[in-house]
Amino acid sequence: MEWIKVFAPATIGNIGPGFDVLGLAVRGMGDTIEARRIESGVRITPIESDYELPNDPEKNTAGIAAIEVLKMLKSKGGVELKIKKGLPLGSGLGSSAASAAAGAFAANHLYGSRLSKEDLILPATKAEEVVSGGFFADNTAPCLLGGATLTRCCNPLDVNRIGSINKLKIIIVTPDIVVLTKEARAILPKQVKMKDFVFNMANTALITAAFAKNDYSLFARSLNDVIIEPVRKKLIKGFDVVKEAAISAGADGMTISGAGPTVFAVTDDNSKAKVIEKAMVDAFSREGVKCESTITEADEEGTRIL
Amino acid sequence: MEWIKVFAPATIGNIGPGFDVLGLAVRGMGDTIEARRIESGVRITPIESDYELPNDPEKNTAGIAAIEVLKMLKSKGGVELKIKKGLPLGSGLGSSAASAAAGAFAANHLYGSRLSKEDLILPATKAEEVVSGGFFADNTAPCLLGGATLTRCCNPLDVNRIGSINKLKIIIVTPDIVVLTKEARAILPKQVKMKDFVFNMANTALITAAFAKNDYSLFARSLNDVIIEPVRKKLIKGFDVVKEAAISAGADGMTISGAGPTVFAVTDDNSKAKVIEKAMVDAFSREGVKCESTITEADEEGTRIL
Repeated sequence: MEWIKVFAPATIGNIGPGFDVLGLAVRGMGDTIEARRIESGVRITPIESDYELPNDPEKNTAGIAAIEVLKMLKSKGGVELKIKKGLPLGSGLGSSAASAAAGAFAANHLYGSRLSKEDLILPATKAEEVVSGGFFADNTAPCLLGGATLTRCCNPLDVNRIGSINKLKIIIVTPDIVVLTKEARAILPKQVKMKDFVFNMANTALITAAFAKNDYSLFARSLNDVIIEPVRKKLIKGFDVVKEAAISAGADGMTISGAGPTVFAVTDDNSKAKVIEKAMVDAFSREGVKCESTITEADEEGTRIL
Repeated sequence: MEWIKVFAPATIGNIGPGFDVLGLAVRGMGDTIEARRIESGVRITPIESDYELPNDPEKNTAGIAAIEVLKMLKSKGGVELKIKKGLPLGSGLGSSAASAAAGAFAANHLYGSRLSKEDLILPATKAEEVVSGGFFADNTAPCLLGGATLTRCCNPLDVNRIGSINKLKIIIVTPDIVVLTKEARAILPKQVKMKDFVFNMANTALITAAFAKNDYSLFARSLNDVIIEPVRKKLIKGFDVVKEAAISAGADGMTISGAGPTVFAVTDDNSKAKVIEKAMVDAFSREGVKCESTITEADEEGTRIL
């Protein structure tokens, strides 16, 4: 049987104020899975990754997603997956979601693409849930659909692709810090102040309008989060000085990607982007934190055949 | 000096979940102000209204707004205003905002229209503040700009016109109940649960996307508010049975307009709209509450010369 090659991009969960609601796919980084039909079941060949990941298909997000899709298709056939991790685990860039999306997409593609990308969000999100402990589509949805997505409801799942912003340049910096998603969730408050709720809601609505209208200027002033960032930034050494450095260097905003520790800054100016990137990396470095960085933009395609 | 005639439409503050953030101008109902230049100062002739309203320009929203605009224009001339109230006070339809918008618009128009409608939001909102005690643009902004608007921030004011939904039919029912805006604000909780914050934010973001894309189907499933409605509905006798009647009759949602007591239901179907209107009026009637009702749609123009 012939192999196919599927790519699933990195994603930025929350996009600042839109906690558990917004998500954005970004170009360049992602997971790649080669896949082919086999007689039955799901098999995972040794994984190419800097991290140890389970080969047991029932414990691996790509494997679980593929199993779920084969069930939905009522297929008797199976799938073999060769996973090449391009995203670091626990970085806040939707690593487990990318593998889940790629696994779901591959299984569907090999058996006639009878499900839409929208249909694949559910099995991919179920797969991510097994690993992350929470059923949230703010990484799987943008990873599959591309651009920015809005999860209105998780049960039943109600996800919408909003659109994209062509001028958006995203500076992504991943510090060498371990943040466990479970911990990042556990430290969140159970209640929020009424005025903070209104503030985050207003900024999230403006980000939504910005992506719907492909309007960077709306987006530029709405990357403000007074609820999640003030709590989670404590898990990211140097956050405040890095943010200050990014803004001083001309960024229109900087905040945490998903549960962190990755942070991202935004601009619409290519030459500024390089200055901002250097300022952020230098600031982390002065704090004694190593990091990796890249300049990217929105990925409008989402999960796809390479 | 010649008279001009200005119309300012009714507005629905919040549009359900978007407390203090979203607002929508609606057709048909509104305040009308005739105005002309005078030598100096602002003068208000006897007001045509079912309610007693102050003729003192410093205590009347239209007068205050006109004074503010003349200041902004650095004009030495004055304005005379003939106010015809088309909106009942304290109904939740932006009555004081409509007078403020009309007053501001009239003064600007009489002195060369040097300010944009966006510029007029600030003086109109200041005027409304004097009367309502709160600085909120979720009525003045849509009243001036038309369509749906998003207030990202009040200080400094950051307001954006999002767009409109052509297919939207709005059934507006105003029960004969007195709700004081101050009371409706005082009973709100100071804190909200994290999951309720996420829920309202997600629905508000989807309403924003719906107006930005002129997409009724997105709007139809997003008129859900778990924070404000459960508290404020207690001030509206019969709310639950009226909502149930509206939904049973085919409405895609029903909630409170602004601080109430007006409620509104939505549909995209003209014939359904009449059935829904009757169901709502009958339900209020069974509760012993008289009401006035109308079927309308979004007003895309906002405040204008008649």
